[in-house]
Amino acid sequence: MEKKLLNNPTEPIGIKPGKKISELTDEMMKTGFQGRKLGESVEVWSEMLKEEKITIWLGLAGAMVPAGMRRVISYLIENRMIDALVSTGANLYHDTVEALGYTHYIGSAQCNDVVLREQKVDRIHDVFADEDQFHSVDYRLEKDFCDLLKDDCRYSSREILYILGKWLDENGKNKDSILVSAYKNNVPVFSPALSDSSIGFSIMFSNRKYNHRILLDALKDVDETSKITEKSEKTGVIYIGGGTPKNFIQQTSVIADYTLGRDKSHSYAIQISADMPAWGGLSGCTFEEAQSWGKVSANARKVHCYADATIALPIIVNSLSEKVTQKRKGTTFVWKDDDLELTY
Amino acid sequence: MEKKLLNNPTEPIGIKPGKKISELTDEMMKTGFQGRKLGESVEVWSEMLKEEKITIWLGLAGAMVPAGMRRVISYLIENRMIDALVSTGANLYHDTVEALGYTHYIGSAQCNDVVLREQKVDRIHDVFADEDQFHSVDYRLEKDFCDLLKDDCRYSSREILYILGKWLDENGKNKDSILVSAYKNNVPVFSPALSDSSIGFSIMFSNRKYNHRILLDALKDVDETSKITEKSEKTGVIYIGGGTPKNFIQQTSVIADYTLGRDKSHSYAIQISADMPAWGGLSGCTFEEAQSWGKVSANARKVHCYADATIALPIIVNSLSEKVTQKRKGTTFVWKDDDLELTY
Amino acid sequence: MEKKLLNNPTEPIGIKPGKKISELTDEMMKTGFQGRKLGESVEVWSEMLKEEKITIWLGLAGAMVPAGMRRVISYLIENRMIDALVSTGANLYHDTVEALGYTHYIGSAQCNDVVLREQKVDRIHDVFADEDQFHSVDYRLEKDFCDLLKDDCRYSSREILYILGKWLDENGKNKDSILVSAYKNNVPVFSPALSDSSIGFSIMFSNRKYNHRILLDALKDVDETSKITEKSEKTGVIYIGGGTPKNFIQQTSVIADYTLGRDKSHSYAIQISADMPAWGGLSGCTFEEAQSWGKVSANARKVHCYADATIALPIIVNSLSEKVTQKRKGTTFVWKDDDLELTY
Amino acid sequence: MEKKLLNNPTEPIGIKPGKKISELTDEMMKTGFQGRKLGESVEVWSEMLKEEKITIWLGLAGAMVPAGMRRVISYLIENRMIDALVSTGANLYHDTVEALGYTHYIGSAQCNDVVLREQKVDRIHDVFADEDQFHSVDYRLEKDFCDLLKDDCRYSSREILYILGKWLDENGKNKDSILVSAYKNNVPVFSPALSDSSIGFSIMFSNRKYNHRILLDALKDVDETSKITEKSEKTGVIYIGGGTPKNFIQQTSVIADYTLGRDKSHSYAIQISADMPAWGGLSGCTFEEAQSWGKVSANARKVHCYADATIALPIIVNSLSEKVTQKRKGTTFVWKDDDLELTY
Repeated sequence: MEKKLLNNPTEPIGIKPGKKISELTDEMMKTGFQGRKLGESVEVWSEMLKEEKITIWLGLAGAMVPAGMRRVISYLIENRMIDALVSTGANLYHDTVEALGYTHYIGSAQCNDVVLREQKVDRIHDVFADEDQFHSVDYRLEKDFCDLLKDDCRYSSREILYILGKWLDENGKNKDSILVSAYKNNVPVFSPALSDSSIGFSIMFSNRKYNHRILLDALKDVDETSKITEKSEKTGVIYIGGGTPKNFIQQTSVIADYTLGRDKSHSYAIQISADMPAWGGLSGCTFEEAQSWGKVSANARKVHCYADATIALPIIVNSLSEKVTQKRKGTTFVWKDDDLELTY
Repeated sequence: MEKKLLNNPTEPIGIKPGKKISELTDEMMKTGFQGRKLGESVEVWSEMLKEEKITIWLGLAGAMVPAGMRRVISYLIENRMIDALVSTGANLYHDTVEALGYTHYIGSAQCNDVVLREQKVDRIHDVFADEDQFHSVDYRLEKDFCDLLKDDCRYSSREILYILGKWLDENGKNKDSILVSAYKNNVPVFSPALSDSSIGFSIMFSNRKYNHRILLDALKDVDETSKITEKSEKTGVIYIGGGTPKNFIQQTSVIADYTLGRDKSHSYAIQISADMPAWGGLSGCTFEEAQSWGKVSANARKVHCYADATIALPIIVNSLSEKVTQKRKGTTFVWKDDDLELTY
Repeated sequence: MEKKLLNNPTEPIGIKPGKKISELTDEMMKTGFQGRKLGESVEVWSEMLKEEKITIWLGLAGAMVPAGMRRVISYLIENRMIDALVSTGANLYHDTVEALGYTHYIGSAQCNDVVLREQKVDRIHDVFADEDQFHSVDYRLEKDFCDLLKDDCRYSSREILYILGKWLDENGKNKDSILVSAYKNNVPVFSPALSDSSIGFSIMFSNRKYNHRILLDALKDVDETSKITEKSEKTGVIYIGGGTPKNFIQQTSVIADYTLGRDKSHSYAIQISADMPAWGGLSGCTFEEAQSWGKVSANARKVHCYADATIALPIIVNSLSEKVTQKRKGTTFVWKDDDLELTY
Repeated sequence: MEKKLLNNPTEPIGIKPGKKISELTDEMMKTGFQGRKLGESVEVWSEMLKEEKITIWLGLAGAMVPAGMRRVISYLIENRMIDALVSTGANLYHDTVEALGYTHYIGSAQCNDVVLREQKVDRIHDVFADEDQFHSVDYRLEKDFCDLLKDDCRYSSREILYILGKWLDENGKNKDSILVSAYKNNVPVFSPALSDSSIGFSIMFSNRKYNHRILLDALKDVDETSKITEKSEKTGVIYIGGGTPKNFIQQTSVIADYTLGRDKSHSYAIQISADMPAWGGLSGCTFEEAQSWGKVSANARKVHCYADATIALPIIVNSLSEKVTQKRKGTTFVWKDDDLELTY
């Protein structure tokens, strides 16, 4: 008897010096477990990039920039492998630090943190940072950058981050910064919890110290992000970690549905994280769960790869760089007053 | 030779019908692994409650309300086992749903989510919810609740949530709601990513539909939360999960330090979560790492219990209810203009 | 429209001093996530104990004895809440250590392990042990205990552990030892990887030093364990952690099926572990996966609670001690030659 | 002030089509989190291979062969990047299945396992297998293979697996099998819980059905494995997952210490697994913990990479294949009577 569930044999992966990274991810698709999922992540992303009219969201949580992922994200922006970014504030602050020419340091997770405190060395797992450098950055943000912002203006995080990208382009040293690339390539960057970072509190300090009345209207972020999904023909999502970025992108579908009265669920969905579903949190929840809410389409191409993004992301994006030979035009956004014009 | 590291023998836990929950947690302190950490969580929290002048922060992430934790949090507020709450928007939205008399349902994580979608049943791991009920709630928020909010006013999330607590007290059915308890007991509730929830997008919709100009100033949250830590004699923190609430409370120390020029790190720290440090994210990072930043004091009493909060929290709080026989007065907050008066 | 999936509302858990542990686990059944699973674990186990003719397997991995779980397991044996035990060798070695009057110590996971090494202190996460005590135990096992074993006899691990239980009963100080309780209550104890522990290598040393020719026939374990499932009317399984104990109990169903030509899958199944399925290992695999193999019945009552057993086990067993008021007779095993007589 | 902890800046990883896998792992060493650990794993393994007199242990747990890792392990054996293997029985059984020309199939973790049961399709996370093929293999093992084994002989698992490797070499179809490569390259393979697999129960069935008296002496495994560490100049260990293989290799150091009265701890240690230390189990425990026991040397080169091995292993070994250009001779083992002659 032939069993129809058994028509697709696995193929043990081989070893060969000089193998291309895209060959490796192709081979992984014939294996099992998270190796296969890594291969499928490349495949689903490649498929997404072939769509003519699609807007691709990237949600970025975790301390990806201190962990050396700045250029990977910047590459994705420059090559329009994504169209819009939602990030934690921390990643954008650390991007600002590196854009201004400061750096993070190779450290260790086995160390005496009380000694670190005495030396004003801040630890992010096995990465160290210089608190004095942070203070220099904060000082420049409070003073020089905030001088560019208008009082009493209802800024969305996107508007503030656009101005920050421009300022970093003019004042920074590293051009392959996330914010600089986004500014130059007209890729909107949102940070719905921007106040939950040193960028946020530098602006707050600017208000306190220099009597600014700068305003960051969190509701405007909801409006703008949902407009992107409303006006897109199709959407795809890539989540690096979970947190606020994932939820924010998820909810644009719910809002767009509600506004337009029709299904605006995401058509492609990739998630790289190691959070498990059993704890019931948003960060670990499956795309199947998201389907019950109409956040991800019932017939979406979807893949969840359980891995640390510092391993998965460089492999996936290097593989994509080999597979995608023609630069994608991407979605064009024109923001005017309270409205958005979105074209492909 | 006597080994001085070996002076404290473990004591195998016994079984006895009718054992009190506080006895159980006491016994757990003599065992190992996360059982011991659960016992220590009760002990550190008890110690914190004995301090005369301390402000206790609770950070609440994860979908704790759908998972049945509403009354536990409300108990903590009413009995002043906490003084200030920072929560994800989702928990407060689901609290609003239950306060208004709607409910969540026992579901299953093994189900066909496409069928759920067809029936407008939303899934949160193994809890189901009725999307039609959610829409009823959203409608009331957009219309009735938002009518209470003033246009062009720079609201912090605390101010909006205070008004919501009052409205729920007047219009709701369940008095043991988090927001109602907080309103009645003058416990400030912050939600730095409130826009990342149905409360946030209901307010945004109110602006869209009814031409409101309601404003949620994310920077004001940074200002207000940091003022609490600045003005407190001492602070203690309890984190249920990680996410924005944890980071927001952590950063109040950093800001207070910077503002006052002296150490304002938290003196007690408890964390209940199952996120592991190896992934480098904020949610899983250790209190040792927090010490390097000066967020947690070098000599803080601190404990991290790796467990699902739906197990740990009911045990810890039931145990506390047996151990703490005298109601704590707690911190009193008087907010006036841009300032805060904080007394014990 | 009534939605039939939504007929079972959750009930938020409340706080009340003096609440019984069995009340708490009952209340947890109306909540969500792992709290609910903890409640369900008690319920499924209670149901199992009501069956007239069932054999209940317990699989015990992890360092449960050093972490203070000895008396809990011993209680389960004495009260016949289990009928047969499969354990890692380590748990039984540490049980031997405690039975002989030695102890484990409260330690810390944040310590300098090189210093520990110098002091001959062995660490098991946050539990310390005295290596000198271990050597005393090893010496007695090599010499006194091994003198009781016959050369060239094909021992199963069960036979050796029965003799060890008897020896500990006669020579030990703590009667609430796992091996002593099992010996006295005629509960078979298997350790398929017994050689992977200090018991195993003490016997091996006995062969080396004293020219014994003691033999531990691993195949006999397979034979004996599968006979238990073959001869049982029904079987239930409880897994604390995964590893060899879980797999060994799982495979008894597969072997019994094969031998008898009919379905001998387990009818009840409880698993307490925090391993996640995504890594593809046996320890984290779901009972659904086990159903594909016929290891767990298609209509089994089954529950997986993701939690550290040092939290879950004391709660579950204390709750059971309140719920089960009549002592269960349990399965009776009579081993003769190569055969087993099993009665209820 | 220069901070001496901050002398080693991170270097954000870049994207470049055609990048070699060894370049990628080199670049990862300048990043953070598990990406850096992956890079370090390659580096530590490379260093190990440069030692003139070292014996390298590989511990292999998890269902690595069904997940497509057979050729990777076989490559390691053939190129003598390892000298001795300790594996779960399951991996060797699945290797036997593939060596005989059968296969595993690409499946899905989202499926109806009851339907799978009806079709005799066995699931291993997202890999399917044909139970009928398994039965064919079992039948051949029981009959043909077991005919090669002698009655009443005290076999270690190594001896049985050597005979199995030879039989597969003569009767199998796939030469890049783990057991065949090990047989041909004189690499000893141990499986201390061999009875916990279909190989084990096929031999047991052979005893039952054909009145064989085949014997698998678990104590002999302890003796033989510890002899390897005793006689080695230096040892290095690589653990894929935890379980019995990890513990068995760890304990060879403890036994060798005890036997020889001097430090025989492992000098290099690499671990690829996603188990976290907080649960207190052996699989997740750190190499620091192992140092307290003297299992890993106080000054060992050690690295733990938290990742699914189906991702990490193909990357590490492909990278090694590019970095190591001269074939290593490896350790030579001559087993005679009860003794071992080990040369480099």
